[in-house]
Amino acid sequence: MFFSVTMSLDGCIAPEYMQLGQPTEKWLDQWMELQKYVFQQRFFRQNLKLGDGGETGRDNRIVEETFNRTGASIMGKRMFEGGEHNWPEEAPFHTSVFVLTHEVRQPWERPGGTTFHFVNDGIESALRQAREAAGQRDVRIAGGADVIRQYLNAGLVDEFSLAVSPVLFGAGLRLFDGIDPRGIALEIAEAINSPLVTHLNYAVHRK
Amino acid sequence: MFFSVTMSLDGCIAPEYMQLGQPTEKWLDQWMELQKYVFQQRFFRQNLKLGDGGETGRDNRIVEETFNRTGASIMGKRMFEGGEHNWPEEAPFHTSVFVLTHEVRQPWERPGGTTFHFVNDGIESALRQAREAAGQRDVRIAGGADVIRQYLNAGLVDEFSLAVSPVLFGAGLRLFDGIDPRGIALEIAEAINSPLVTHLNYAVHRK
Repeated sequence: MFFSVTMSLDGCIAPEYMQLGQPTEKWLDQWMELQKYVFQQRFFRQNLKLGDGGETGRDNRIVEETFNRTGASIMGKRMFEGGEHNWPEEAPFHTSVFVLTHEVRQPWERPGGTTFHFVNDGIESALRQAREAAGQRDVRIAGGADVIRQYLNAGLVDEFSLAVSPVLFGAGLRLFDGIDPRGIALEIAEAINSPLVTHLNYAVHRK
Repeated sequence: MFFSVTMSLDGCIAPEYMQLGQPTEKWLDQWMELQKYVFQQRFFRQNLKLGDGGETGRDNRIVEETFNRTGASIMGKRMFEGGEHNWPEEAPFHTSVFVLTHEVRQPWERPGGTTFHFVNDGIESALRQAREAAGQRDVRIAGGADVIRQYLNAGLVDEFSLAVSPVLFGAGLRLFDGIDPRGIALEIAEAINSPLVTHLNYAVHRK
């Protein structure tokens, strides 16, 4: 089980969390700066139906490989609610997605093979269901930071990849806030140089 | 002018700041885990008189190159006070070092070519003096985080290198806390893969 997110050099995966739930212009500017490299990748553009074109180099291959290895995703309720109205009708997952929520809701099937399942009984149950749905492929935690933290602290993450963007936020939603480092030992798997973003891959062991 | 520091993957360069100024055992454990790779490098061990042996690979060359390009260093008062009693008599700088402080004090000359100068009139004055002392070589901000932040926010840093250790602190002294990101544009220079630490080099431009 793995996660793969874009992070600022000072450890943020989003600008300061919005209390009112509505992105401001500044929020969007910062977020777009963070995610700039991925919007330039051909695979990402096609998958989100943003149009043709885009880079086809190593960054693009990494984005595509991350998609291809993923047999099912897990996400938090806020990430789902953020995407529910913004993803295209053919949502960009094309697999089962397990949403951690208190809401009781029937599975929501989208064209193109994405089905959202709403899980009410915790992270281990979501992981079990996701593993079964993923078959031979891997389970990805899509986000957000609090869901990643819960799985890390529970010792359930095997690997993760950070795409470190060359931006500083100063303040924001930190990926590793609330991590309990006493149980986590990281091993560097690879660092991949690119002009737009730096890919850092780690294996996670228990201490 | 550049800085080069070791950072945890979650952006810390030291455990939580000690109010009483005395390192606890836990503080030292975390700090040693962060700095583990450098204590294994031959050049670092020789320069701090920690004994023979040590790695002689790429990490060691990077540590040595950082030393060789440095013609003068700038540091904050707390870093100086932390090192004053812990560096060997032959302090590991072997150049002029400019200490930002309110204390009025005569230059302190150590065997081996290190002279500490105490600067009372601000960061630009310290930089001017350090540039003059450095000659053809570069000026390094040795630390700590608050001094680095002041130079970054003033637009005076040209480049920096982070040695990112594969450790998470969860909480601690963050390198980029208090940075004003609106004036800072980063450009990736290089990412260097190593089993012990990841070297990330950036050029800094004004936005």
